[in-house]
Amino acid sequence: MDHMTHTFQIDGAEIMARIEALAEISETPTGLTRRYLTEEHRRANNLVAGWMRDSGMQVREDAVGNIIGRYEGNPPGASAVMVGSHLDTVVSAGKYDGALGVLTAISCVQALCDRGIRLPFAIEVIGFADEEGVRFSSTFLGSRAVAGTFDRSILDRRDAEGISMAEAMHRFGLDPELIGEAARRRDEVLGYLEVHIEQGPVLENESLPVGTVTTITGACRLEVIIEGIAGHAGTVPMSLRCDALATAGECVLAIEALAKGFGQTVATVGQLSVEPGAINVIPGRVRFTVDIRAATDEARNQMLAAVHERVEEIVHQRRAASTIEVSHDANNVACTPSLMEAIDRAIEANGWRALRLPSGAGHDGSAMASITDIGMIFVRCKDGVSHNPDERITHEDAAVGANVLLHVLRHFKDHNALSHT
Amino acid sequence: MDHMTHTFQIDGAEIMARIEALAEISETPTGLTRRYLTEEHRRANNLVAGWMRDSGMQVREDAVGNIIGRYEGNPPGASAVMVGSHLDTVVSAGKYDGALGVLTAISCVQALCDRGIRLPFAIEVIGFADEEGVRFSSTFLGSRAVAGTFDRSILDRRDAEGISMAEAMHRFGLDPELIGEAARRRDEVLGYLEVHIEQGPVLENESLPVGTVTTITGACRLEVIIEGIAGHAGTVPMSLRCDALATAGECVLAIEALAKGFGQTVATVGQLSVEPGAINVIPGRVRFTVDIRAATDEARNQMLAAVHERVEEIVHQRRAASTIEVSHDANNVACTPSLMEAIDRAIEANGWRALRLPSGAGHDGSAMASITDIGMIFVRCKDGVSHNPDERITHEDAAVGANVLLHVLRHFKDHNALSHT
Repeated sequence: MDHMTHTFQIDGAEIMARIEALAEISETPTGLTRRYLTEEHRRANNLVAGWMRDSGMQVREDAVGNIIGRYEGNPPGASAVMVGSHLDTVVSAGKYDGALGVLTAISCVQALCDRGIRLPFAIEVIGFADEEGVRFSSTFLGSRAVAGTFDRSILDRRDAEGISMAEAMHRFGLDPELIGEAARRRDEVLGYLEVHIEQGPVLENESLPVGTVTTITGACRLEVIIEGIAGHAGTVPMSLRCDALATAGECVLAIEALAKGFGQTVATVGQLSVEPGAINVIPGRVRFTVDIRAATDEARNQMLAAVHERVEEIVHQRRAASTIEVSHDANNVACTPSLMEAIDRAIEANGWRALRLPSGAGHDGSAMASITDIGMIFVRCKDGVSHNPDERITHEDAAVGANVLLHVLRHFKDHNALSHT
Repeated sequence: MDHMTHTFQIDGAEIMARIEALAEISETPTGLTRRYLTEEHRRANNLVAGWMRDSGMQVREDAVGNIIGRYEGNPPGASAVMVGSHLDTVVSAGKYDGALGVLTAISCVQALCDRGIRLPFAIEVIGFADEEGVRFSSTFLGSRAVAGTFDRSILDRRDAEGISMAEAMHRFGLDPELIGEAARRRDEVLGYLEVHIEQGPVLENESLPVGTVTTITGACRLEVIIEGIAGHAGTVPMSLRCDALATAGECVLAIEALAKGFGQTVATVGQLSVEPGAINVIPGRVRFTVDIRAATDEARNQMLAAVHERVEEIVHQRRAASTIEVSHDANNVACTPSLMEAIDRAIEANGWRALRLPSGAGHDGSAMASITDIGMIFVRCKDGVSHNPDERITHEDAAVGANVLLHVLRHFKDHNALSHT
């Protein structure tokens, strides 16, 4: 048993209370929805900035809207271990997805600050501005800007109200021309650590509060448009119709069947809209999205090709037309072996068995991996439910997650020395 | 050959020019959308009212928002033949659906007025305020109010923006409490005549400009809600999902297959919306509509029962939940035999073969039939396309429609004497 681990312990209560406070900030009166560059994003950044300052950090908002609190090490001005997660949410989200990681990191810094402990490196807690990609259909906007891999073409992309990302940045008080300034140099960053809810059932099945992530699964996202022929619902015989929604419905079922057949692969049609969308008009145009993830990059690419082929087959059979655009494609990303070991040791030091598991969900770490080492700690969530208001974790598990992260941080120099020698 | 018919002829040019002018009034910058009680409804009523006045009519707006122009007969104050159609449109509509009937009626009155001809009855031209039912998912609001069969529960129904019909009426300057005042007494109305585009391919196939409608097909409309379980698109295995959209997709295909199997039956899923509707969230809830029409009331009711049964089967198999609500159900309505004969004769007097055909679309006549005799004249439209910006008719066919209507009006006394003796 490590002596340092037991000198102090973080209680989960403060993390849980802050998660509740943060979840009050929603675009919708019921449910939790907080998208990138909204008024609620501004309020969330302000609230989190206050907690960062209370924990001894200097706070700044970067050029893409990430909120960053820096806790100096000894000596001041040293390179930093970055720790965080995202502050945006999906539509009708759970409270813990993203928020847990940011608030856990703040509590760790607070624990150090309260005891006047300075580590030989800085800690930067980051609340990423956009990870879910709900508003502009492109994920990891915050972490990609930090990693210097932000794709400027996304600035022209428009949200459902027709506002481009560049316009939304201006309204938020940011200058899209300066987005490159959010990028960090490799030598400024020693590593990236993130605590996140598992969003799956593995830890619960194993009766473990936390686990060590091995891989962050990539995802491919498609935007499909089906063009049929609109017409009067009462006068066009069934045999003469070219119904865009019936065509899309057949695609939805075919994609589901393909994913079932592939194994260790999931595919989801999450958005679907119908034009003109009148009760008595045969749909002339349908737009839908597909999200594909698999255990390996190869499997994902095979599934992508199969979806393409099947959709085109269906569209051809129904004499409709289609366009299929890949809006996002990210490979699987492996966590850094030495950080996985450090997390395993921290879990064991906290009295639990170290379990390694892959992440089916994407995370900011997959973007951060292009500039630094990454490590992720998963926290058990109830029934594996996430992206849903029923998302739940316990106070006790939040505390274990925080204490494991604190242990990793306090021993980070050992890891760093180890991994670079 | 009838001497009177050839004393004067209506040219289609004015009707076509007015259709273009009316089509400029749209809620959307491109395409034509003009829903009930919108600012565009107000502008359309004003424009049409001006044309009515120019044609010698006294104009009033009734309690539901219909615009009515009265051309007195000799003696003044006599009962009226009502002639018209609707001024609202579907979303992304054609220009002729509805508008043709109102503007043809105005041109007929103008032809009489220009020559100082007074008939032994009044003519009232009516532009119905809502026939399509797009805004409040309930059709024939205008003609039902006139027929005294308006269902007051619809006043509480809300549009997509959450505005109730009662609120929308207030904003438009109408008092929902007074809606009963739009109802006409049977003895005030001698009959209802309507010119409308066919919205189907029959007349074009027969190379005829116009035809006599025999029956207005009823329709049944359903609102279906499918409840699945929302979840993370990356972490929930396919085998554990309860995807509301995949369930709805299966329903859409099953409804299509049922309608194909029934014969002389059509079913359309025209609206479908997904919640939460995020690219990376498994859909938890889907709402869709079904519109069912058939050659007979019996066939429509059988199809309705089959859709109910099939949707519930699919939902049960997928461990989802559903609610199915009938939002509208109207039986087929037969046109009045003596008016069909009068229209046949008018078509022949104009030099064409009289063809009788049913209407697959619903029309205001089906509501008007509950207080008076009804007759409908169909005008050929290109490729049978309607509820679509590609809807087209020719100048020449518009003229034939107008001259047939004028003939029926000028001989209406004969019909009336005939039918009531």
